[in-house]
Amino acid sequence: MPSAELIAIGTELLLGHLVDTNSQFVAQALNGVGIDVYATHGAGDNVERLARLMNDVCARADMAICTGGLGPTVDDVTREAVARVADAPLELHEASLHAMEARFKAMGRTPTENNRVQAMIPRGAHVLENPNGTAPGFVVRRADGKVIACMPGVPREMRAMLHERLIPWLATTFGVRQTTVSRSLHTIGWGESSLDATIRDLFESQRNPSIAMLAHFGWAVDIKLTARAADRHTAAEMLDELEARIRRRVKHGIYGVDEQTLAWAIGAAFEARGLTLAVAESCTGGTISADLVAVPGISKIYRGGVTAYADQIKTAELAVSARTLQMHGAVSEETAREMAEGVRRRFNASVGLSTTGVAGPDGGTPEKPVGLVWLALAAPKRTLAQRLQLPGNRADVIRRASTAGLALLWRMIEEET
Amino acid sequence: MPSAELIAIGTELLLGHLVDTNSQFVAQALNGVGIDVYATHGAGDNVERLARLMNDVCARADMAICTGGLGPTVDDVTREAVARVADAPLELHEASLHAMEARFKAMGRTPTENNRVQAMIPRGAHVLENPNGTAPGFVVRRADGKVIACMPGVPREMRAMLHERLIPWLATTFGVRQTTVSRSLHTIGWGESSLDATIRDLFESQRNPSIAMLAHFGWAVDIKLTARAADRHTAAEMLDELEARIRRRVKHGIYGVDEQTLAWAIGAAFEARGLTLAVAESCTGGTISADLVAVPGISKIYRGGVTAYADQIKTAELAVSARTLQMHGAVSEETAREMAEGVRRRFNASVGLSTTGVAGPDGGTPEKPVGLVWLALAAPKRTLAQRLQLPGNRADVIRRASTAGLALLWRMIEEET
Repeated sequence: MPSAELIAIGTELLLGHLVDTNSQFVAQALNGVGIDVYATHGAGDNVERLARLMNDVCARADMAICTGGLGPTVDDVTREAVARVADAPLELHEASLHAMEARFKAMGRTPTENNRVQAMIPRGAHVLENPNGTAPGFVVRRADGKVIACMPGVPREMRAMLHERLIPWLATTFGVRQTTVSRSLHTIGWGESSLDATIRDLFESQRNPSIAMLAHFGWAVDIKLTARAADRHTAAEMLDELEARIRRRVKHGIYGVDEQTLAWAIGAAFEARGLTLAVAESCTGGTISADLVAVPGISKIYRGGVTAYADQIKTAELAVSARTLQMHGAVSEETAREMAEGVRRRFNASVGLSTTGVAGPDGGTPEKPVGLVWLALAAPKRTLAQRLQLPGNRADVIRRASTAGLALLWRMIEEET
Repeated sequence: MPSAELIAIGTELLLGHLVDTNSQFVAQALNGVGIDVYATHGAGDNVERLARLMNDVCARADMAICTGGLGPTVDDVTREAVARVADAPLELHEASLHAMEARFKAMGRTPTENNRVQAMIPRGAHVLENPNGTAPGFVVRRADGKVIACMPGVPREMRAMLHERLIPWLATTFGVRQTTVSRSLHTIGWGESSLDATIRDLFESQRNPSIAMLAHFGWAVDIKLTARAADRHTAAEMLDELEARIRRRVKHGIYGVDEQTLAWAIGAAFEARGLTLAVAESCTGGTISADLVAVPGISKIYRGGVTAYADQIKTAELAVSARTLQMHGAVSEETAREMAEGVRRRFNASVGLSTTGVAGPDGGTPEKPVGLVWLALAAPKRTLAQRLQLPGNRADVIRRASTAGLALLWRMIEEET
């Protein structure tokens, strides 16, 4: 089995200014195709020390996979370090320069002289195109057969390059093939320990496929299944079989798989039922709307929403009565109900969802403390409301309340099916 | 200046099951007291490989600071590796065993035989008590003066132990008390290479305080300044002086420092000028509103917004004329202008901001491709519009368009000041 060590490059890592999330991502991808990861390293922008580390890695493992240090500034020394340890001087790579110029032009900008440095590649290297950014990556094979690959440190650029360019090249070069396949079942409304109690014996009885649980905010838990097999097809069949066993136990709350978000699942369920949705947000301030709009094609079911931050907007835009606001306050069951009904009517939608609460840090009172949130859901036949008391800071309360709002929509769908 | 390398231990790191956040935390703390971090490493639960790595680190640096691998299972080999490289056999540490038994008793449990292993400490080591968990940490000084410190991998346990036990011991042992202070200046509208060209000579001419740049999405770049000095006050003065020099060069676009976000800066500037804001979002779907509402106290200036996802909502809620939509389409300068003016009037705000665009992946045409976004800003005296052609997938287009919308507000503030 071929072996790799990872090098994350950037002095900011050694100063503790950044968490290195790239190594985790790369390690997972390499393991997935059957490449063993022996170690990870974080190194600074120091060309001598970096070159020594690359040499040390090549003495122990078949490949060094590097991220970062490909920017346009004098700090960025990754190219130079590889040129030294691979004995391959940097040369201008014309195709990369043209791609960079085209990219800048499309954005109405011109590359500076600094940017040209980013098209300098060690002689003989295989270039890894970067569809999402300026700096191309590259991979060199030394005379002794050891491989050094370099990708940008920006996670979005690195991730696409890794999966689309580097992994296929490594798989061909080292004759490895995909052996590990994972699948995440996303649940809402269970909580980790109840879910654990429900499927624990499935976990304990087997190692392949394996089961792990990952708890997120607000009662969202992922059940992660991982199978190893000689090929993807066999691994996928193993996962299908295990997933079916889990679904026989966990009868509600599994809303999606892998990249399917809760908002995606709501969109698909609304579309299948011919329903439309509108939202009225106070404390969540547009977060639920943004979650919905992140889903491609959501316009089929989502009509839009109002962020009614000022009380006056609740009255003018959502027809919440001034009397309700005066008697019960903006954060109350009554206001939440009127907001949901108001946006449903006003936006001519089948279902209206609302949020109103105290996100903090200020504005709490003994009766209405920070973290108090009211949700309401106005459906054709009835309006429901839910009271929450959420922990955490302002960002936590907003995030948890938004997830709870989507979870309320999901529960409505499950109960009506 | 004493030097350190960090070792995060656990096979799960090499499998990519976990992100190592400990190294960032430890690096920041060591830098803060004047200990240089040369490199970080992630290692698996393999005693030979780990011992070799510890020896290599001791050959390069004054100390190896390790996290993880102190659990009660056979996987946990950190103690054993240190015993080998420090030539100090493991011995039962009675005080640690008693502390562990007391801790279990308080929770109504009894330690298992495995847990006893956690009180085995290399002979002669200085024990680091763990008030938050079972496993104590320890630090050994080898015959050659090199130091190896081990702490648990659980972040909550490690963090308390680091600050309360290990850092004071290291500060005394190495006689350090230097301090590092960092400050980030957040810019918008420059881009990394233009900013680099503007201040590069400041970078190149000095190492302390140092300057680094960190590029984010959508022409947002942070300039990070770091000063080392004998005390925090002197370091802060050095940063003040460098910041002033940078601000003389970078005359516009610096909107905030450290935890100040662009939305925060807009909120503060609007409040100082007695202005209020409302937003009308189509393609950004609530993201700008959510960015604003993330700022505590934003209700002083933010009235609310409309997510006008369906065209009918643009007409009904924002008074965009049906004729404009028919003649120019929803994604057009004319629609963007009417949306901004409509929400400004309707929400009775000083300024209205709007977005309309093609976020993709579907819906693009040759005339209006995916990534085309129109922004408009309706102020008391005039309405401006801006056309953008943004790269990336749906999430990228939404994020970049949102940042560009906030940047347009910021530019209005700067130009009117």
